[in-house]
Amino acid sequence: MVIQKNKNGFYAQSGGVTAVINASAYGVLNKARQHPGAIQKMFAGQNGILGALEENLIDTSLNSVEEISGLKTTPAGAFGSCRYKLGDLNKNVEKYRRIVEVFKAHNISYFFYNGGGDSQDTTKNLAEFVKEQNLDIKCIGIPKTIDNDLPETDCCPGFGSVAKYVATSILEASLDVSSMAATSTKVFILEVMGRHAGWIASSGGLAQDNENDPPHIILFPEVPFHLHSFTKKVEETVGKFGFCSIIVSEGVKLENGELLTNARGTDAFGHAQLGGVAPLIAQVIEKELNLKNHWAIADYLQRSARHISSKTDVDQAEAVGRHAVELALEGKTSVMTTIERITNQPYTWGLGSVDLEKVANREKMLPSDFISTDGFSITEKCREYLSPLIEGEAYPDYQKGIPRYTKLRRELASKIVNYDFPI
Amino acid sequence: MVIQKNKNGFYAQSGGVTAVINASAYGVLNKARQHPGAIQKMFAGQNGILGALEENLIDTSLNSVEEISGLKTTPAGAFGSCRYKLGDLNKNVEKYRRIVEVFKAHNISYFFYNGGGDSQDTTKNLAEFVKEQNLDIKCIGIPKTIDNDLPETDCCPGFGSVAKYVATSILEASLDVSSMAATSTKVFILEVMGRHAGWIASSGGLAQDNENDPPHIILFPEVPFHLHSFTKKVEETVGKFGFCSIIVSEGVKLENGELLTNARGTDAFGHAQLGGVAPLIAQVIEKELNLKNHWAIADYLQRSARHISSKTDVDQAEAVGRHAVELALEGKTSVMTTIERITNQPYTWGLGSVDLEKVANREKMLPSDFISTDGFSITEKCREYLSPLIEGEAYPDYQKGIPRYTKLRRELASKIVNYDFPI
Repeated sequence: MVIQKNKNGFYAQSGGVTAVINASAYGVLNKARQHPGAIQKMFAGQNGILGALEENLIDTSLNSVEEISGLKTTPAGAFGSCRYKLGDLNKNVEKYRRIVEVFKAHNISYFFYNGGGDSQDTTKNLAEFVKEQNLDIKCIGIPKTIDNDLPETDCCPGFGSVAKYVATSILEASLDVSSMAATSTKVFILEVMGRHAGWIASSGGLAQDNENDPPHIILFPEVPFHLHSFTKKVEETVGKFGFCSIIVSEGVKLENGELLTNARGTDAFGHAQLGGVAPLIAQVIEKELNLKNHWAIADYLQRSARHISSKTDVDQAEAVGRHAVELALEGKTSVMTTIERITNQPYTWGLGSVDLEKVANREKMLPSDFISTDGFSITEKCREYLSPLIEGEAYPDYQKGIPRYTKLRRELASKIVNYDFPI
Repeated sequence: MVIQKNKNGFYAQSGGVTAVINASAYGVLNKARQHPGAIQKMFAGQNGILGALEENLIDTSLNSVEEISGLKTTPAGAFGSCRYKLGDLNKNVEKYRRIVEVFKAHNISYFFYNGGGDSQDTTKNLAEFVKEQNLDIKCIGIPKTIDNDLPETDCCPGFGSVAKYVATSILEASLDVSSMAATSTKVFILEVMGRHAGWIASSGGLAQDNENDPPHIILFPEVPFHLHSFTKKVEETVGKFGFCSIIVSEGVKLENGELLTNARGTDAFGHAQLGGVAPLIAQVIEKELNLKNHWAIADYLQRSARHISSKTDVDQAEAVGRHAVELALEGKTSVMTTIERITNQPYTWGLGSVDLEKVANREKMLPSDFISTDGFSITEKCREYLSPLIEGEAYPDYQKGIPRYTKLRRELASKIVNYDFPI
């Protein structure tokens, strides 16, 4: 009698977490549970791919349906994520070999990797390695990044929720400044993430009903910062509306490509700097225009703000996770699930997949026709693209006034390989 | 025949605005509309008390019921607020005289002033002045301050919503750091408002289910900052939980009472400083412990975040506005409406009033038994006090993915006094 070994799956979260990456986890785990004949058990990497390298496999079969469902409304990485690159296959083959060793020991035939560009590259490399080894391990990438810079997918889960947070926050703070400007603060600056591309900064523009509405100025990483044209625009805006509301991307650069501020060191104008471009912009406004200002840096608040996630984003995050399992069960490998925009108004979308070869190591930048000619705001085309991504609310439950987020039990499977691997 | 002059009312918003001060405005305007025989028309000051001094009176009778209702869910000051003190009655009598001149010209017999400690003092002074002048103008204070530092009222409208924002934000950001800590950020710092009292900082403690939960450290203005005990606590926390989540009040001080950082200048450790205590704490952690960290400064975002307002706070804000009109119509003057806690569990509350003499120029500080003995967290007693204030959600409507906030039409009444007053 031939004993059919049970096939298991492995899911890992990678890189900076988001408000909805756990919704993708839910999509994967829930779908896999619907196919117990094909996938007996899903393991999740404790702290991402480190979990595979260190054989720290969370046995999600021990989690109840309720626990798994809680992932839909819980931000950040419930299994732990990591910033750890496996790197080039040829130079780091021992890492790929180790992962395969652990996978073989635990009968893992499905690999789901939930991350950004680097993670998609890793998934591609692993797919290549298992093919060389004549192993049947399906390797599927699941898109995730607040930076929205993955190619081949219309958008990236995680981005829509940050965009909704940024648009709502600048709308609210601008109302505040507007009420106080007669006798107090005249300029407000909100610093947002996005070191390479201006997707997040651009989403601030969604707070505008018309061109006179705040935010009056967006500083994109794509548009070189000119001191004079910036201060002129601030001065004009305060003259016209009594106040000026500004979004600044952490990635704003000078003409020569140098970041306006280095996180720890001396800024581009030679001032000592404790990090943050917003205080630098504030200093410029004070020195050049002598205008009272306030500034905020949202930092992790923006990417973890599940309390104001976009429903579209939550739905898409879950869907790309679910579809990853469907693709694997169809026998696909070395692909990433994608979101496809079908129509703009009304917004309709579907799911697809793309060969990882086309995704790995490519960044989708903000198109130049998404930025206005003066470089300080977004175009109608940009608005049409962004707007559906922040649509809909998907509130978590609350208990005692705060969101009731899941604290997932993380029980590790017994080690089988059981020797240390140098990380 | 005796012509009975119509009696009108005047409402103004004062000082830093909040997520719910417009709900108080709604309470006032809506209640006054129910008594057209007593109060024919409500004017609102354009930019607070400046509106009275400059005779810029917004005629709210021109606003529809729908417009007025929109105030319930719109943050910041719909009529404009200001930072402008009338000051001591004896030294500034010309300002009080001017206000009364404008009030007489517009038949204003009811004055409602919505603000913090200074505003309550102003209301008291005006009540005194009109009494001296034998004028029948009822002067009622309506409490408002995110700082929660007004005496005689159990809490201050505006505070509960900031508290909910801070508790939710630190909960979410802590989940984020917790997921990343294995290979990346180990310490997260959120700077919150509250220069004099630690009420807002204390609200971060509501994110905890038990003492091991984040935030692990709260730095209060009431507790002198000791470098060594702080870094020791951070180090221990990271050792125990893998990460450390910190709330820091902008008002944290050294033993000698000096603020840890001055907003613009050199900080307490002699470093150049662009503002913000969070980056200073971050620098300390990096220098002393060499731990990767991230920091956020919520600034105006925290006090304008109507999207996550506490329902309790919204209800109380509306109620104190409504009750102010009731008190005026009962013939009261020189009083402030108060919120009275009846029971803690379940939380029940009522409305009251207090003589402004007892309110003016007194700050309610965080009681010492609300802070733990090590000075880094809140006590159970504090939690019992704070918890009901953040209870309940009161979501605004959304349109195209962002909250649909009212843009109130502000039509000014024709000037009657019509000469300039030097501000």
